[in-house]
Amino acid sequence: MKRGAFFLSDRTGITAETMGHSLLSQFDNLEFEQVNIPFIDSAEKANEAVELINAASIRFGNKPLLFSTLINDEVRQIIEQSEGIMYDLLNTFVRPMEHDLGVKSAHAVGRSHSMGSYSNYKLRIDALNYSLVNDDGNILKHYPKADIIILGVSRSGKTPTCLSLALQYGIMAANYPLIDDDLESTRLPKVLEPYRDKLFGLTIDPDRLRHIRKERRPDSRYAEYQQCQYEVNAVEKIYRSQQIPFLNTSTVSIEEITTIILQSSGLTRRLHGQA
Amino acid sequence: MKRGAFFLSDRTGITAETMGHSLLSQFDNLEFEQVNIPFIDSAEKANEAVELINAASIRFGNKPLLFSTLINDEVRQIIEQSEGIMYDLLNTFVRPMEHDLGVKSAHAVGRSHSMGSYSNYKLRIDALNYSLVNDDGNILKHYPKADIIILGVSRSGKTPTCLSLALQYGIMAANYPLIDDDLESTRLPKVLEPYRDKLFGLTIDPDRLRHIRKERRPDSRYAEYQQCQYEVNAVEKIYRSQQIPFLNTSTVSIEEITTIILQSSGLTRRLHGQA
Repeated sequence: MKRGAFFLSDRTGITAETMGHSLLSQFDNLEFEQVNIPFIDSAEKANEAVELINAASIRFGNKPLLFSTLINDEVRQIIEQSEGIMYDLLNTFVRPMEHDLGVKSAHAVGRSHSMGSYSNYKLRIDALNYSLVNDDGNILKHYPKADIIILGVSRSGKTPTCLSLALQYGIMAANYPLIDDDLESTRLPKVLEPYRDKLFGLTIDPDRLRHIRKERRPDSRYAEYQQCQYEVNAVEKIYRSQQIPFLNTSTVSIEEITTIILQSSGLTRRLHGQA
Repeated sequence: MKRGAFFLSDRTGITAETMGHSLLSQFDNLEFEQVNIPFIDSAEKANEAVELINAASIRFGNKPLLFSTLINDEVRQIIEQSEGIMYDLLNTFVRPMEHDLGVKSAHAVGRSHSMGSYSNYKLRIDALNYSLVNDDGNILKHYPKADIIILGVSRSGKTPTCLSLALQYGIMAANYPLIDDDLESTRLPKVLEPYRDKLFGLTIDPDRLRHIRKERRPDSRYAEYQQCQYEVNAVEKIYRSQQIPFLNTSTVSIEEITTIILQSSGLTRRLHGQA
């Protein structure tokens, strides 16, 4: 038996969706049809949302769950007339916060993800361009400017990690691919020596690596299990002997990877808010 | 007068931070020192967090605000002994949800951002590679595979938009830069004709564009206000006369841009969860 779950907001719905997902994930025996309805900023749009909610209620024969960050009172009152069960994510806490802080809230719409300021834009773009230019260790002369240098064997997730660090946090992340020559000893490649404090290693399960490489170059030695296993073992030996912090990317999401790197490297994000 | 604000979680803290930012943004007359403490998964780490919270309480002479998505009861009870005021973001809603749904919750840690599945990984990487290869309209032969083709003049935000669509939603986004030749008429460039349904336009305030271009090529005609204004006017004329949906990126954040594009193009995200 399915049930509708709606994320309702005045703006992007990022907060409503993020919180809604977290809450629904605590009820993973149930099946939900999840619908994001962002930018509900007029009575007309609120009425359209009510129609969708009521249709889901009839279709599944139960009350849809509504996860709302709606601030506008008129919009909220219209939604409350629907067949859904409302969980009012912001107001539930804003009231006690007003009491605890002894001030009134701004009661204003969509404040948290709408900061398209030039300085934020510039930080993000600079970091993004940096990552794009410094992908795959070609341009060592930019390493002094790096906030962090991500190491790993080919296809272990360096590029998405660097780009996510740039887009989410405005961090300048370069990357260096460890290839066969580098893997022959447990020493650090010479070019990396001066940047020891900036290094962070990625590793991956050999079987996952084989899958990924096979997509790219089927029937190559590069994609054979034995080669993948050899490279992963060798790279982890380097990380351990050189005391480079590292992370296995196989079972964690990209959000977890970037958060762990930020945390473990002691870097400060240059940007606030989600990418 | 400042006050500490802590985002506390068993895992990445993405939900706690996102909700915490939204709530704090409703109190923008006050100043908060914001600290993310993710991965609090032991009594030891909980005690370390309590020390940080109590130190902030002494430093600022007031009670820090705690935005928690902690699930583990032992950890939560330790944190509750601190000097902070606890806003329990998940449990506040999980209890009423259990009642409304008539089932018990899983009461399990960090479910919403920990899905590092191979299929999610592959979707994201394929989309990312697609965006990287198809950046700046060089390879028209890949357009049939695009979910969406982003148009815009040079430096109007096409690349970060495409990469964010890939990383956040697993969407295959190509881009096409509209250059002087294209801007001379209000017709669509011929190569884009077959893909009319996939087009989405970006525009930008001329003054913002001038700033961005100046960073890149100071003292060039390219960065002159007049040239920027000409290009922006011309590109908007094309969007309007060709009925291409478009968005001004100047005052919105990257999260808003991607959400609006998703919404307006009717595309379905291939991935769930925040990038």
